[in-house]
Amino acid sequence: MTTTLQDCQALDAADPLRGLRAQFNIPAGTIYLDGNSLGVMPASAPARVAEVVTREWGTDLIQSWNKHGWFQMPGQVGDKIARLIGAGAGEVVATDSTSVNLFKVLSAALNMVQADAPNGQLTRKRIISERSNFPTDLYIAEALCKQHGMELVLLEPEEIASALTAEVAILMLTHVNYRTGAMHDMAAVTAAAHAEGILTVWDLAHSAGAVPVDLTGAKADFAVGCGYKYLNGGPGAPAFVWVNPLHANRFWQPLAGWWGHAAPFAFTPDYQPAPGITRYQCGTQPMISLAALECGVDTVLAAETLGGMAALRAKSLALTDLFIRLVEERCAGHGLGLATPREHAQRGSQVCLTRDEGAYAIVQALIARGVVGDFRAGDGGIHKDILRFGFTPLYIGFEDVWHSVEHLKQVLESGEWQRPEFNRKHAVT
Amino acid sequence: MTTTLQDCQALDAADPLRGLRAQFNIPAGTIYLDGNSLGVMPASAPARVAEVVTREWGTDLIQSWNKHGWFQMPGQVGDKIARLIGAGAGEVVATDSTSVNLFKVLSAALNMVQADAPNGQLTRKRIISERSNFPTDLYIAEALCKQHGMELVLLEPEEIASALTAEVAILMLTHVNYRTGAMHDMAAVTAAAHAEGILTVWDLAHSAGAVPVDLTGAKADFAVGCGYKYLNGGPGAPAFVWVNPLHANRFWQPLAGWWGHAAPFAFTPDYQPAPGITRYQCGTQPMISLAALECGVDTVLAAETLGGMAALRAKSLALTDLFIRLVEERCAGHGLGLATPREHAQRGSQVCLTRDEGAYAIVQALIARGVVGDFRAGDGGIHKDILRFGFTPLYIGFEDVWHSVEHLKQVLESGEWQRPEFNRKHAVT
Repeated sequence: MTTTLQDCQALDAADPLRGLRAQFNIPAGTIYLDGNSLGVMPASAPARVAEVVTREWGTDLIQSWNKHGWFQMPGQVGDKIARLIGAGAGEVVATDSTSVNLFKVLSAALNMVQADAPNGQLTRKRIISERSNFPTDLYIAEALCKQHGMELVLLEPEEIASALTAEVAILMLTHVNYRTGAMHDMAAVTAAAHAEGILTVWDLAHSAGAVPVDLTGAKADFAVGCGYKYLNGGPGAPAFVWVNPLHANRFWQPLAGWWGHAAPFAFTPDYQPAPGITRYQCGTQPMISLAALECGVDTVLAAETLGGMAALRAKSLALTDLFIRLVEERCAGHGLGLATPREHAQRGSQVCLTRDEGAYAIVQALIARGVVGDFRAGDGGIHKDILRFGFTPLYIGFEDVWHSVEHLKQVLESGEWQRPEFNRKHAVT
Repeated sequence: MTTTLQDCQALDAADPLRGLRAQFNIPAGTIYLDGNSLGVMPASAPARVAEVVTREWGTDLIQSWNKHGWFQMPGQVGDKIARLIGAGAGEVVATDSTSVNLFKVLSAALNMVQADAPNGQLTRKRIISERSNFPTDLYIAEALCKQHGMELVLLEPEEIASALTAEVAILMLTHVNYRTGAMHDMAAVTAAAHAEGILTVWDLAHSAGAVPVDLTGAKADFAVGCGYKYLNGGPGAPAFVWVNPLHANRFWQPLAGWWGHAAPFAFTPDYQPAPGITRYQCGTQPMISLAALECGVDTVLAAETLGGMAALRAKSLALTDLFIRLVEERCAGHGLGLATPREHAQRGSQVCLTRDEGAYAIVQALIARGVVGDFRAGDGGIHKDILRFGFTPLYIGFEDVWHSVEHLKQVLESGEWQRPEFNRKHAVT
């Protein structure tokens, strides 16, 4: 029996999380399936940002560092993010960009490997990652490898298990792949790495706020993540960094700025790292953007009384299941393929479709209709061009899924996507 | 003949820059002498920030990366800052924190030194700086020295000239000292360093927007600076980084994130640095805070039609001269010393006073009266406790100077500063 619009409306009516959408002002006429690139604005953000600008900065000025707790903001927002990723209070700071934080944790991990090398002889000279990992992660790892005389080895997901050998120092993975939405089993992969003495670094850019993450349970070593995707923190919001408390006090990273000092206001000329995660702070953080990030994180925490990440996950899977089913039922014969795993355990909160030609133009035609997904180019080889649709269960409903597939069907059936205006390639993020 | 309140009022009336103060909403009853720590809010900032939050993020969402030029913002704001520091268009980006940017330029400078070493044998193994340089600069340099097996040598200003030898790789200085307001002669110091084959790295945290800076004329090698002091960019505003175009394309730094890639949206797995300064970008930047920074930079650029930095400098010197003279005339006998040089060529835009006891409490008593300066602790040795007063010529007038000295006089004569509530030490930035 095929699914109908009425079925989707019934699913929305029965959705216990439906009320969470009221936290956002989504533009009329838009079905926003790009929350995995830039989350939508929480309705609370304009007033909170205005307060930081006009009252805290404008009126209280320098006194706000104490009066409004600016100096504590990275830890305060970090503590909230911690609740979404299976970390404890005091284990996360919201700071800098994902790339900069990745540099910090990779540096710290390399320092650990160096310190633990028998007789100081470094035999582990490889960092392993996925070829289709988000490029900036690879660039940062490549830079560190260049500095340390190491090798960055890029593999397909299925090649990773057999590559975990005594030559490997660090396994660096993005938990949910940005292109395909494929998700690693964090606990199993971490255990396999640890069995070979390999440290794990996880990028949670497409996980935090999207799927349940249990860094503590998985015994992960380091993690970083993004504030402006599923955490709805605003454009370029500060990122976050977590270090397993087992490692937090032991190790060192070279972005050793004053916000990571044990006594930042003593202004001593020598660096003494603060205990724990605080040493992963470096310079002064952008307070206005941090305040917006806190609004975003709060929109996810609002689900805590409704079942939290488990409930969001259940809805997310129902949404992506529905999208896949409707695409297959209603858009059959149009050359679409599925790049996202069907198995729940291997799927993040997005669905990626492939098509041999026209993927870019189809995405543009959908955007013109108000269905905002995005396009990611393939490499001409095994990684195909991708039509990417993110499903943020906080603000996407089942009827939205119906309409987005209906638009996709019409774009394909009408040949609308072949119009010249949709075929000009230009940069989108 | 002593100076009177009426004299100060006459100076304000004759001040061609007086109208620039209308760009700010300074809280009533406040004389804000802490713009060297956190500049005041431009009156344009709330509306511009609200536009970025509500319209760009809230309504246009992901399309704003193109539609509103978010991706170009670091370069766009950088180009504006360039006009204030003697740099060309395309030579500056506004990004990350000062500490992170300092790490980038020190790394790049060390890579240059390494590449230029005869037979690859590094003989220059020292970084030289001032003992009372801003601590985070020293921490970052210390971390890099630790990584590279080098030595960080900290000196008093008068010891630097004789320390410029063939063992030195880099001279890293803050142009205007954060504690004392003493200013280096950038061109002369750079020439002396270059004569010995030493690269120069300048921190412009207390210079940009405060004193004329001519990086190009001085033939400086690298510079970083702060967005939230004299540039009025808001709490924790992104910082900036400049590289002499002679070096910009040649060298590499390890914070090699996707925003510094030659083709960031090609998503290729290998890193290819963008030409010029763009390669000093790393990860995604906080757009809301960047927009506020642009408002702040615009308040300084508004002086361009009134004589620009030269006119601001003339007023700044007149303000600090007046403050010094009034303190000496009206607060004599109260144990105050002057830590800031009297010579114009050696003075930034602040005046620092010393007192053997009570410096912290006097600052607190002044703040309670609405005269906001700040306190910086000494080291118990030659660096004394400091009462620090910043004079931002954009919004401080001569009558403000009169009243601030009058308050200081009353605080000292009445013994008000000895009240218990002013003597509790707690952190201020």
